[in-house]
Amino acid sequence: MRAAVQEWNAAGGPPPFVSLVAGLDAANPFVGPEALERTTGARFRVRVGANESAFGMSPRARAVAAGALDRLSWYGDPENHDLRADLAAYHGVDGGQVLVGAGIDDLLALLVRAFAAGGGRAVMPHGSYATFAYHAATFGVALDTVPYRADDHVDLAAMAAQARASETTRRRNLSGDGNGGATVVYLANPDNPSGTWQPEAAVRRFLAELPDHCIVALDEAYIDYAPTAPARELLTGDARVVTMRTFSKAHGMAGARVAYAVGDARVCAGLDRLRLQFGVSRVAQEAARAALADQAFVADVARRVAAGRDAYHEVGRALGLPTVPSATNFVCFDLGSRARAEAVMAALLGRGVFVRKPPAPPLDRCIRLGVGTEAERDIVAAELRRALDVLTELPGDG
Amino acid sequence: MRAAVQEWNAAGGPPPFVSLVAGLDAANPFVGPEALERTTGARFRVRVGANESAFGMSPRARAVAAGALDRLSWYGDPENHDLRADLAAYHGVDGGQVLVGAGIDDLLALLVRAFAAGGGRAVMPHGSYATFAYHAATFGVALDTVPYRADDHVDLAAMAAQARASETTRRRNLSGDGNGGATVVYLANPDNPSGTWQPEAAVRRFLAELPDHCIVALDEAYIDYAPTAPARELLTGDARVVTMRTFSKAHGMAGARVAYAVGDARVCAGLDRLRLQFGVSRVAQEAARAALADQAFVADVARRVAAGRDAYHEVGRALGLPTVPSATNFVCFDLGSRARAEAVMAALLGRGVFVRKPPAPPLDRCIRLGVGTEAERDIVAAELRRALDVLTELPGDG
Repeated sequence: MRAAVQEWNAAGGPPPFVSLVAGLDAANPFVGPEALERTTGARFRVRVGANESAFGMSPRARAVAAGALDRLSWYGDPENHDLRADLAAYHGVDGGQVLVGAGIDDLLALLVRAFAAGGGRAVMPHGSYATFAYHAATFGVALDTVPYRADDHVDLAAMAAQARASETTRRRNLSGDGNGGATVVYLANPDNPSGTWQPEAAVRRFLAELPDHCIVALDEAYIDYAPTAPARELLTGDARVVTMRTFSKAHGMAGARVAYAVGDARVCAGLDRLRLQFGVSRVAQEAARAALADQAFVADVARRVAAGRDAYHEVGRALGLPTVPSATNFVCFDLGSRARAEAVMAALLGRGVFVRKPPAPPLDRCIRLGVGTEAERDIVAAELRRALDVLTELPGDG
Repeated sequence: MRAAVQEWNAAGGPPPFVSLVAGLDAANPFVGPEALERTTGARFRVRVGANESAFGMSPRARAVAAGALDRLSWYGDPENHDLRADLAAYHGVDGGQVLVGAGIDDLLALLVRAFAAGGGRAVMPHGSYATFAYHAATFGVALDTVPYRADDHVDLAAMAAQARASETTRRRNLSGDGNGGATVVYLANPDNPSGTWQPEAAVRRFLAELPDHCIVALDEAYIDYAPTAPARELLTGDARVVTMRTFSKAHGMAGARVAYAVGDARVCAGLDRLRLQFGVSRVAQEAARAALADQAFVADVARRVAAGRDAYHEVGRALGLPTVPSATNFVCFDLGSRARAEAVMAALLGRGVFVRKPPAPPLDRCIRLGVGTEAERDIVAAELRRALDVLTELPGDG
């Protein structure tokens, strides 16, 4: 990152941005459903495009959130102490190993800033969570992307190989700023947007192959939906891993902005020096504690989502569309080509179903449908059946 | 900002931070009242140390916030469109001139990042809002501080002179990264922690003396308490000024995290490329719209605060303590020396009154007391009177 050395436009314009910012594309990673609604003037009938929970939040957390409004004129505790203490107890770690942020996006920004900003390098699966790339770009971090495997899983071996390959470069350039190898490696597990999942043994093999100087942003936003041991378990014992979890998914609190990272205490202490002190709202802090305490609610949501995934796989079979295995609250439906997937997505959007799709091969042949309630899935299935009609109009298709 | 070139600790520690982060002090800008309560094990009786509003939030905004909890499983609109549109209409500007953030702290981080990160330079009043300095440090920005005038006002002439002096350096070093002059100038008006205020004519004179390449972070968090024309008016017509306002003070929503900046559309577009897309909660977005619409509530709060300031000035006269003129929701009480002010603050904290004090001369001779409700002010006045007893025990004092 370089300080501003552009000449200022003397014709009354604003002062110049630093060159990094001046060179950024204006593209934001996501277009919200509200923006699409403003374009069409019509509200979506079903909102299954942002991987939000269809099953609301714990009634106990809801009651606590409502009570917190009585103290909304007070800042939340800048240390997020009580929530951190609860999380530490839940996971069996020390409070210093927990950092709370306003969503995983917030934590991802802190991580790349601490370990790569200003000329570093990062690795991510090509087409995985767009905010990985967004933060890398805005902090001046170069990004190497690694394609998914043909079975739509993250290619962990290729990710590690990419990190090692840039490591060779790093050793050659130890004195150079911004010419080194990758220091940040992004892994969402379960993955978004594929929905696929890697068991702990596979992740441990991946870690064994990673250079020592790499920090791993392990985004476990969807962990509560995964077919694993209790979600309270963490992959621990490796100071290179920062595990990130959120209350935005199974806990149904995406609109509250609260998430946390668990990692080495030294890493957490470093990120703590960068964060917004008052970034997590009082409502979010208090409701998250109640949501954490209501694990029965989370387990029930996970059961409902698993049933919904099964129903979606059945819809796919009935329509002749393969589906991608999912450990999340969404399922990718395989339309066979990017053009077909885009046409079907457009048809669904036009029929009031908010949906998104993976951006990059091989998954760009798919549309991604969130597991809604049973009533929502019925609408989605019916509209998907109708939307397939557009495929007969595609040149070279149908 | 430089990428990591430190040698990695091969003894199993975490990967190295970039050098900027590795070199940061661990000090956070504020210790929250909750942290002090955890230390003593006792809850504060009165909380007048964080400039929070004692008068709650608009009942209409409160009702909207409660309703928003029904949609908390949905992300808020990443564009904050409706709130931005309301703010633009309120101020008579275009939507593109408004940027919404999770508190002014969030907006301040974006601004210094866009205009000075990675080796730039900034100017602020010595001892003014601590988060100015916090963000500058964490983004690798050098900071020049300018003392307050003897009358406890920000020394605008000296601030402009400091910016011009570093401008001379900048011209000599156009090709050097991080060796240039100040590009960011911080001004809180009304000021925190002094409480003093500069009329628009004084700010315009200051702007006329500032170099063209400086961006001004004009923090107007306390504007609703200032003795001025309707708070909807903005200082406009200068692309170097980014005015920041918040719902944390007179609107009584500090715990919700929502604020906004108004500035040149090109500046806002640049900051928009850096922000957290989903950083402002659904509760905050929806409640802020209702709070903005309830200006009668804000005006009533301002009247109550003005009465409370008068009452505090009277308390000062009765106790023989000069008070600093205030255009905010707090009043600085002059104890005569830093040692005396610290002793009285400690006594108040020990008696259950949460209070803070300005950190730097000349204001470090003061303690800063927030305008609470009438009942809270009665407690504060009584405890202040008792706390003054500690002064007789100070060496060389009493």
